[in-house]
Amino acid sequence: MFEEKYTLILSEIKNAISAVDAQQTEMLTERLLKADKVFLIGVGRVLISLQAFCKRLNHLGIQAFCVGDFNEPAITENSLLVVGSGSGETAIPLNIARIAKKYGAAVAHIGSNANSSLKEYTDLMVRIPVRTKLNLEDETDSRQIMSSLFEQSLYILCDSICLMISDKKNLVIKELWQHHANLE
Amino acid sequence: MFEEKYTLILSEIKNAISAVDAQQTEMLTERLLKADKVFLIGVGRVLISLQAFCKRLNHLGIQAFCVGDFNEPAITENSLLVVGSGSGETAIPLNIARIAKKYGAAVAHIGSNANSSLKEYTDLMVRIPVRTKLNLEDETDSRQIMSSLFEQSLYILCDSICLMISDKKNLVIKELWQHHANLE
Amino acid sequence: MFEEKYTLILSEIKNAISAVDAQQTEMLTERLLKADKVFLIGVGRVLISLQAFCKRLNHLGIQAFCVGDFNEPAITENSLLVVGSGSGETAIPLNIARIAKKYGAAVAHIGSNANSSLKEYTDLMVRIPVRTKLNLEDETDSRQIMSSLFEQSLYILCDSICLMISDKKNLVIKELWQHHANLE
Amino acid sequence: MFEEKYTLILSEIKNAISAVDAQQTEMLTERLLKADKVFLIGVGRVLISLQAFCKRLNHLGIQAFCVGDFNEPAITENSLLVVGSGSGETAIPLNIARIAKKYGAAVAHIGSNANSSLKEYTDLMVRIPVRTKLNLEDETDSRQIMSSLFEQSLYILCDSICLMISDKKNLVIKELWQHHANLE
Repeated sequence: MFEEKYTLILSEIKNAISAVDAQQTEMLTERLLKADKVFLIGVGRVLISLQAFCKRLNHLGIQAFCVGDFNEPAITENSLLVVGSGSGETAIPLNIARIAKKYGAAVAHIGSNANSSLKEYTDLMVRIPVRTKLNLEDETDSRQIMSSLFEQSLYILCDSICLMISDKKNLVIKELWQHHANLE
Repeated sequence: MFEEKYTLILSEIKNAISAVDAQQTEMLTERLLKADKVFLIGVGRVLISLQAFCKRLNHLGIQAFCVGDFNEPAITENSLLVVGSGSGETAIPLNIARIAKKYGAAVAHIGSNANSSLKEYTDLMVRIPVRTKLNLEDETDSRQIMSSLFEQSLYILCDSICLMISDKKNLVIKELWQHHANLE
Repeated sequence: MFEEKYTLILSEIKNAISAVDAQQTEMLTERLLKADKVFLIGVGRVLISLQAFCKRLNHLGIQAFCVGDFNEPAITENSLLVVGSGSGETAIPLNIARIAKKYGAAVAHIGSNANSSLKEYTDLMVRIPVRTKLNLEDETDSRQIMSSLFEQSLYILCDSICLMISDKKNLVIKELWQHHANLE
Repeated sequence: MFEEKYTLILSEIKNAISAVDAQQTEMLTERLLKADKVFLIGVGRVLISLQAFCKRLNHLGIQAFCVGDFNEPAITENSLLVVGSGSGETAIPLNIARIAKKYGAAVAHIGSNANSSLKEYTDLMVRIPVRTKLNLEDETDSRQIMSSLFEQSLYILCDSICLMISDKKNLVIKELWQHHANLE
């Protein structure tokens, strides 16, 4: 039963992520490297995937913050906001994206719905073409529960981008640990 | 470049997770279904994978808490503590496991090192056989940075267990959303 | 210097909190006791004061959640949302309050500005009459930095309500610890 | 009833905090100003008081992190760890303090028990002389529930130190907002 389940999950992730436009991920990688500070926003398990991304970006020497962090600084026109939202219609991320644009920051959207309300505030979209909360009836693309496939694909996509950043910065794996928390 | 990276990640996860003993995951699933309350502990990105697990367990009708949550209740002899720790030597999880045993709770360890200090407090281990912080020099099993492979495999393993729970409980996908936060 | 500072803070809190309408706090206490579940929302240090409240409410046997918690359940018409916002204009709390009303939940606002956008969604307001982010120039009421006075007054007000709840429920102090997390 | 409760709380805080040795708070203030990075650790509502402190320290231009933050950096011999623990016996803070000393960092303890296990790792103690979890029977000093008095006193003590830092740095209140998160 376990084998059946992980095989299903990994095969669904592979289908979803191989349908992503690689050029969009290259552009996001460039934006991440160029930004003075990176801010991340999402809700629920989508936020959790971005939190894993946030931690790794910091290990790679990129200053990243989840919105609401205790030491979140002010966003500026040199910053990048990354919004994770399958539907692109989640209220809090929409609000935050609107405010980020007001301060002149760039906004990247990782989501599924290319024609969402977020589009108005978005400089760059990386599209993971899977079902979203808005079209849950459409179960053709995933046999998993709820929005698991988007959350999983987001996690793996972000880790792929981290490996791309690591290459571009010619980082030596052993030296990465110097940025890593060492208190536990 | 993106394709090379996600292919690497997915293939490493597949190797790691297919080396897990399926029977151990069945036993963990049974323990999760039997416990009155489930507690989860880990640090860093391992904790983040468990937080995703925690959210989904609650959607599936299982009362789960990450240690430190604002509404964390008291652990009892009917509870299960799930410890995520590759090395099984992380200080905070070790401490928490020791305290959990003092209260008579069951302790499950998802990790890599089968002969760790955690073993003393562990009723059940699910072993993901990849390198840990303690043997980072041994890079034969992963070309990724840091402990990414353990964190990713843990995430996918936990989501596989969620699908197993969903089957065992005969849950209807559409009805799951009734347990889901609806405020955003 | 330390004495000067804590004397200033305590005297400002006393002024602020003694200007609160006691009847409003009684009504909030009743609502908290009546609700099947309590949800709390705020941002920044206001959220932190509510998190302290959330933890203590759970100790007192009241099911409380901060919006975004890993085990946040669905809000219903029997639930209470408590919004902390000095100005009553903070975007995320406004959104959450609007959604809470849609589900038929009661909404209580603890804030300073009695005529804010939140008013539309509010069943009950507890007003702490101090300056807010919107009228920071008006420094007559506090010599402290930023919105410290609101955050401190909110913290003390919430702890006062907890003592009121403890009395009303005739709770025995020693027995409270049974609801308290015991894993650390 | 509300008046009786807030009067009790404010008078207990005043008693507790006026018994603190002002010189210890001056020394802690100096350490905070001198450190390249500040780390904060505690559990439960004690941690929540430190999180409020963490946020404000960052506003004041001091780099502060709660242990476990997504962007927590490595601690070094130029860093300061602030431990909040009434009893000085809480397992996780003890562990973290031990590790911090291993890396050569300074450790400050804000607590009640002057002769705790933490003493071995502590360079500086600020003592708030109230009861702790270890001597709960001794209820002479507080009529509040659980450890509320320590948590409240810690919150107010930390905000007093922030005002001292603001004075020492000659910070202009209006300019502080430039360090403040602006995304919500």
